[in-house]
Amino acid sequence: MSQDPLVVFTPSGKRGRFPVGTPVLTAARQLGVDLDSVCGGRGICSKCQITPSYGEFSKHGVTVADNALSEWNAVEERYQQKRGLKPGRRLGCQATVQRDVVIDVPPESQVHKQVVRKAAAVRAIEMDPATRLYYVEVDEPDMHEPTGDLERLKRALAAQWDIPAISTEFSTLAQLQPILRKGSWKITVALHKIDETATPRLIAAWPGLYEGGLYGLAIDLGSTTIAAHLTSLETGEVLASSGIMNPQIRFGEDLMSRVSYAMMNAGGAAEMTAAVRDALNTLTTGIADEAGIATDAIVEAVFVCNPVMHHLLLGIDPVELGQAPFALATSESLSLSARDLGLDALRDAARIYVLPCIAGHVGADAAAVALSEEPGKSPDLALIVDVGTNAEILLGDATRVLACSSPTGPAFEGAQISSGQRAAPGAIEAIRIDPVTKAPRFRVIGCDLWSDEDGFWAQTAQTGITGICGSGIIEAVAELRLAGLMDPSGLIGSAAQTGTERCIAEGRTHAYLVHDGSAEGGPRITVTQGDIRAIQLAKSALYAGARLLMDVRGVDKVDRVVLAGAFGAHISPLHAMVLGMIPDVPLDKVTSAGNAAGTGARIALCSLKARAEIERVVREITKVETAIEPRFQEHFVAANAVPHATDPFPELARVVTLPQVGFNAGGEDGGGRRRRRRG
Amino acid sequence: MSQDPLVVFTPSGKRGRFPVGTPVLTAARQLGVDLDSVCGGRGICSKCQITPSYGEFSKHGVTVADNALSEWNAVEERYQQKRGLKPGRRLGCQATVQRDVVIDVPPESQVHKQVVRKAAAVRAIEMDPATRLYYVEVDEPDMHEPTGDLERLKRALAAQWDIPAISTEFSTLAQLQPILRKGSWKITVALHKIDETATPRLIAAWPGLYEGGLYGLAIDLGSTTIAAHLTSLETGEVLASSGIMNPQIRFGEDLMSRVSYAMMNAGGAAEMTAAVRDALNTLTTGIADEAGIATDAIVEAVFVCNPVMHHLLLGIDPVELGQAPFALATSESLSLSARDLGLDALRDAARIYVLPCIAGHVGADAAAVALSEEPGKSPDLALIVDVGTNAEILLGDATRVLACSSPTGPAFEGAQISSGQRAAPGAIEAIRIDPVTKAPRFRVIGCDLWSDEDGFWAQTAQTGITGICGSGIIEAVAELRLAGLMDPSGLIGSAAQTGTERCIAEGRTHAYLVHDGSAEGGPRITVTQGDIRAIQLAKSALYAGARLLMDVRGVDKVDRVVLAGAFGAHISPLHAMVLGMIPDVPLDKVTSAGNAAGTGARIALCSLKARAEIERVVREITKVETAIEPRFQEHFVAANAVPHATDPFPELARVVTLPQVGFNAGGEDGGGRRRRRRG
Repeated sequence: MSQDPLVVFTPSGKRGRFPVGTPVLTAARQLGVDLDSVCGGRGICSKCQITPSYGEFSKHGVTVADNALSEWNAVEERYQQKRGLKPGRRLGCQATVQRDVVIDVPPESQVHKQVVRKAAAVRAIEMDPATRLYYVEVDEPDMHEPTGDLERLKRALAAQWDIPAISTEFSTLAQLQPILRKGSWKITVALHKIDETATPRLIAAWPGLYEGGLYGLAIDLGSTTIAAHLTSLETGEVLASSGIMNPQIRFGEDLMSRVSYAMMNAGGAAEMTAAVRDALNTLTTGIADEAGIATDAIVEAVFVCNPVMHHLLLGIDPVELGQAPFALATSESLSLSARDLGLDALRDAARIYVLPCIAGHVGADAAAVALSEEPGKSPDLALIVDVGTNAEILLGDATRVLACSSPTGPAFEGAQISSGQRAAPGAIEAIRIDPVTKAPRFRVIGCDLWSDEDGFWAQTAQTGITGICGSGIIEAVAELRLAGLMDPSGLIGSAAQTGTERCIAEGRTHAYLVHDGSAEGGPRITVTQGDIRAIQLAKSALYAGARLLMDVRGVDKVDRVVLAGAFGAHISPLHAMVLGMIPDVPLDKVTSAGNAAGTGARIALCSLKARAEIERVVREITKVETAIEPRFQEHFVAANAVPHATDPFPELARVVTLPQVGFNAGGEDGGGRRRRRRG
Repeated sequence: MSQDPLVVFTPSGKRGRFPVGTPVLTAARQLGVDLDSVCGGRGICSKCQITPSYGEFSKHGVTVADNALSEWNAVEERYQQKRGLKPGRRLGCQATVQRDVVIDVPPESQVHKQVVRKAAAVRAIEMDPATRLYYVEVDEPDMHEPTGDLERLKRALAAQWDIPAISTEFSTLAQLQPILRKGSWKITVALHKIDETATPRLIAAWPGLYEGGLYGLAIDLGSTTIAAHLTSLETGEVLASSGIMNPQIRFGEDLMSRVSYAMMNAGGAAEMTAAVRDALNTLTTGIADEAGIATDAIVEAVFVCNPVMHHLLLGIDPVELGQAPFALATSESLSLSARDLGLDALRDAARIYVLPCIAGHVGADAAAVALSEEPGKSPDLALIVDVGTNAEILLGDATRVLACSSPTGPAFEGAQISSGQRAAPGAIEAIRIDPVTKAPRFRVIGCDLWSDEDGFWAQTAQTGITGICGSGIIEAVAELRLAGLMDPSGLIGSAAQTGTERCIAEGRTHAYLVHDGSAEGGPRITVTQGDIRAIQLAKSALYAGARLLMDVRGVDKVDRVVLAGAFGAHISPLHAMVLGMIPDVPLDKVTSAGNAAGTGARIALCSLKARAEIERVVREITKVETAIEPRFQEHFVAANAVPHATDPFPELARVVTLPQVGFNAGGEDGGGRRRRRRG
């Protein structure tokens, strides 16, 4: 036995001796080396490509002769001619061990390959898909031994893949007979496991060797938009990303108005459920078209969403989420079939995973942010804010993670703003106000130039200047303050007070004129006193939530701030801090995590381990309910002002002086004392 | 400890010592005594009634004092006044142990109570229901600890019932929140286990203590009729039985014509699936109405059916069952939800169990017969014949059981018979022909008198005499032979040959006139030569199947014959044997098992153990495929004749002589050589 050749696999370093003639794939399996295969070693799927290394390898103590593996064979030659192999590659199921050898398993041949995430913090996702393909050859039926086709398939899986038992999604059963016959008793099945130890479930089957790929949808189901990433379950690659408006908007802009709709209208919840499922079907068909794949190849979808969206997706009346104590029907993760959810664009048996909710106001979207941003693994204290109609806030480090949500309302998304609009071409997304001339310059979505640069007007002629989106309004309010046009309480000064005709009277208050397109038939875009109040309410809620978590944690400051959410990606950290949306930290400690919830969905889609991880993490998070914490109200009221001067921002040196006196234009108290209502 | 009182339970004989003050229910649980409880010992469900025995009990060696149990308490008094307790009964959760005591658990307080079956062989079903009720009190939600309602229900089940984990049928989740609130956080849940070791599944819930009972449907889904028994899952009692025509009849009378319909028409299989599901919904609503219960209280249904009905019920195209090798999509038992099958009359989460199929032509109905009749436990060799459009045949004893099916066609059900009709009022179901006068007398369904008895014509005036049903045609053919009107090859003689004007010419053959109602506008009912041929084909197929199993078993005779099937219940054993439907055995060895398939369904409905048992038995049955056995064809041809004289039936002494010469009326060869086609 000691004469058997030594086989060393890299990068795992696993090694063992095998008899001459052992296929590399067999050796890998016996050593538990992660080497992929769909066809089970029949030389037809080409997933098991390996690279033998020749020469001397002191690290492994092995000298590898040129003839350490068997010669290139006919199967490899056929594959080479048909599709081509990279230089140096062999098929692991064809090449057999002849002498001592070092064999590298390239990343694309590993099931548990690393996928580098594009998010700010470059971390890797380890592929650990819940659904995998297995090619099997099934015995033909025989009248002398009358077993069912399914039972013979099970026998083949046991014999050829060592899978002792499977369960069968009922809807797949009816398709089995024609598929087996079309493939002449060769079949590729997709088996899904809901966790590492679960019995695999037969959820899809194709005749012969199926090479169309397995895909999943990572879906971030927001109150306003639904975003989906069509992702390969083999490589983790995102083939297409697509978004669609959440049609529930017609039942109410924000979460609480949708809950109200459900409470006030019999069948209202069911109506909203049907609407969102319709949209999901449209989105699915569209994204599959865009990527050029069949919807049939999509075998999984992962959902992240806030609790109200969660319940409405599942067909559960969200009424309990609209009133204390905000009880979820269920907070645990859910594993369902597409048929359960009426997602007709997917195959009936496609599996749906919904991330766990953290609490009645802190949903699966926040769980996804926690999965993506991993505050529980952070060495320093991180504040993670997912800004949307509702803000989810996480505060934590390796010691402890806290979470809450805060009802910011839709102002940050451009709603409830006089010239507000959604982020779309023509919307002002960035704005600067000259502290001396008090004149604005701005940038609109769809054009990279500022409005005072050459070519801006030509380039924007088509879209026009249509309004201000969320990031634009935040910058506008902050800039009004920085330019001395607005006092700390949020009041815009008059033309007389500020010295610019752009400050125009509107009733008893004043507005700032950003752009007047009325001569060209376009809108007259202003920032009104009402807009400022709306933003003050929103930012106060956000700030108060963060402060509340800091109180509970017993800290006065955080080490870093992560702005998450599609919208968070576009907020200027500097302006957010001027506005007082987030606690003060050095500017270089504010990062954007992009759509962290969507990233979390993608991670969960690619990895069973990640699902288990977030289920564990969610149980350990300390939940803080803003609605019952008196301190939240205190922080909320206190956060109403926009007090910032230059300090602590040397970047803002252009701001020389800030008015010392407010421009109180009337009896309005600044809105800070308006009580927030929930449900 | 040895001073603790001794508690002995009867009938189990289990005993143990418990501290004074231990509730009887607690003692029973700790000893594993089968004492029912839904409320978990709260004194509200009254399922745990027990009878303490007083006096000296030598058998148990215990002397029981009058005050062996605690005094009658307020809870018992309240229950007594509200509903009444039988004399001597106590509530096991209220009465506590004070001194040595012997406690009898009456049958109705046992979960695993015995239900005596009404079938011929009086055996008992042991109740072992898959679905049981649990009453729990759930913690109210609390903002400080934001778990979902489902999670708090799970916690309550773990704490109050020691059920560590449950899974949840998705459709039940949406109903949970309103039910919990309606019941003020008291709830009764129905948990279903698919086998003894499975995690229980939450399939239904009711507010507070639910006392409406749990029910199931045992459904025998036949090609022609669908029969259902609405059965209590607590007592095994049948509350109502109901039948409905299988609407698939409009797509074809027999199985193969339905398979053909599916093959010839795109969407044909789906059409038949929809038809049978519609009928099942109608049947469900009707039977629940009849029994006066809500369909919501029906939480399970068990199906038995032949393989074609099985596939069409499940929405699987039966095309493979119409051609060799007759491969089933799946032969194993199936556990599904009502929603999977589109059985909208049931709650979505109601559980469906479909018995396993034995082979491509031997279905779950035959499995149910095996469960009911238990040939594998028979000390003598039993031939069990389930007669329908297809006959399922089982032959076996404790050594070995064999099974086959035989394509008898629908003649036995009155189809393909000139005056044939289904069993319905007005149909001739029994007939006798006087061997001397050659005149018939008969009985019709709906009247207990024979046609030569006083009052018959008055009683049948309303329905009239409308045709001959299956049992009637079998008797008619046998009587024609016994009366010497038909020769062994099956030819009816002419009036001249037989000496009766009732034998009338019809083309080149003759028919026997049973009844001429044409004067009153009714039909003229005859038995034609074609009818005889149809019955000969059917009985030959049945006989050949039985003979084939006997060949395989290597025997020439069987010890007893069991006629099963709703129709089998009405066949006269004597006439069946004259006709040569079944092998010769002494007449007293022919018994009817009634609707054995339906009984098997009912047993499976009431018992998880029975489900496990039949799954095991089916794997061990030797399957014999008639379609590929040359011997089947030989037996079939050989069985065409109707040769019986008086011997071996002394009961038939009235038959003095049988014609020695046939009445060959032409070139017809008797039909015996017509090849049977399958598929």
